[in-house]
Amino acid sequence: MIEVIAFDADDTLWHSESLYTMTQERFARLLSSYHDSESIHQELYETEKRNLKLFGYGIKGFTLSMIETAIEITDGQICGEDIQTILDYSKEMLQAPVQPLEHVVEMLNQLANSYSLMLISKGDLFDQETKLARSGLARYFQIVEIVSEKLPATYEKVLLKQNLLANQFMMVGNSLRSDILPVLAVGGHAVYIPYHPTWAHEVVEDGVPQSPNYYELENIGQLPDLVKKLSSGR
Amino acid sequence: MIEVIAFDADDTLWHSESLYTMTQERFARLLSSYHDSESIHQELYETEKRNLKLFGYGIKGFTLSMIETAIEITDGQICGEDIQTILDYSKEMLQAPVQPLEHVVEMLNQLANSYSLMLISKGDLFDQETKLARSGLARYFQIVEIVSEKLPATYEKVLLKQNLLANQFMMVGNSLRSDILPVLAVGGHAVYIPYHPTWAHEVVEDGVPQSPNYYELENIGQLPDLVKKLSSGR
Repeated sequence: MIEVIAFDADDTLWHSESLYTMTQERFARLLSSYHDSESIHQELYETEKRNLKLFGYGIKGFTLSMIETAIEITDGQICGEDIQTILDYSKEMLQAPVQPLEHVVEMLNQLANSYSLMLISKGDLFDQETKLARSGLARYFQIVEIVSEKLPATYEKVLLKQNLLANQFMMVGNSLRSDILPVLAVGGHAVYIPYHPTWAHEVVEDGVPQSPNYYELENIGQLPDLVKKLSSGR
Repeated sequence: MIEVIAFDADDTLWHSESLYTMTQERFARLLSSYHDSESIHQELYETEKRNLKLFGYGIKGFTLSMIETAIEITDGQICGEDIQTILDYSKEMLQAPVQPLEHVVEMLNQLANSYSLMLISKGDLFDQETKLARSGLARYFQIVEIVSEKLPATYEKVLLKQNLLANQFMMVGNSLRSDILPVLAVGGHAVYIPYHPTWAHEVVEDGVPQSPNYYELENIGQLPDLVKKLSSGR
């Protein structure tokens, strides 16, 4: 019954959060003469949350929030050179190699012949497109949707556009908030594959979703077996 | 024969470049104790061009380029407070009212009953979506595509996705480079409506396109008449 399998990208198909985490560490070190690491992280997170509705997701907004945080916690004392260093972090992130997670390539090879594969990624359009290109995985996906938010209405629109019933659709991702709960809400199948570390903003406190359409796997290499089981009705 | 009329957004449906121009003026005034206005503009344009392949189009990338330019032309002497001022420009731009150009609402009302209307806009996904929402024009468009570049292949993909022949498709926009030439290249109809000022990067030097599918109008209020003439075969 499943016809289309859709994948989140960041931290589902390739590493992403680790790039942010690493940059946050560098940022805290850069400003270590002003504050301790923990309060810098906390301040940055607050700035990001506050700016989210203006900047949306992605590296450029993250960078603007780093710069704003740096000005705030140094009382405007930060020098131009250090701001340039933050800009350079951003450029490194935007050009970082896109490294597929373990099992991803074999998994896509196994599923690509029997299913339409789709990528549904949240974030900065330009950045997500260049990452897909750099990942070498673009050829596996018939459909690529970059969206600004992953709400139930977002998935409804995708289903409508593809002329799909909800139970023909499976979403695979690492965020309960973005990839799993909204898909279950519209009646689709959702496969949760946790990734560590998860960005605080994506953490959901409510425990495991209660739905017959919900599945959790330890790694994405287990997906072809799950799909095979489901389609054989077991 | 035309079934779908697609519109560029920035400076075709609503003012956008004027917001950039105004911000550039403020930026030059902010740094006027370091350099004259003209060399600041020139330096910013160089930085933007250099960063385009990393940042893509949009306000966030523009802001990062302003910050980088400010550091460069002040030899790193710019203070935190001034960088914060630049960040504030950016936030103002992101929240600025989206003001439809003259004639746009009447024109959309006239065409919406007889044609599928589409919006094809280049730039930052999140920013373009919130602008469309703020413009009050969202209800006119059956299909909205935010793309990272407007190349012939971009339009080919759109036609394929909508199951359209090129001669059933008309694109309306203010950029020869992005809205007109690539559409003519794939065999569609293209209506050029100049807007002043046009960003230097979008300026094409080659003069008027030579194609029977090319039309130029002075303002978008003239579009319904053109479409009527074309569909009556005159």
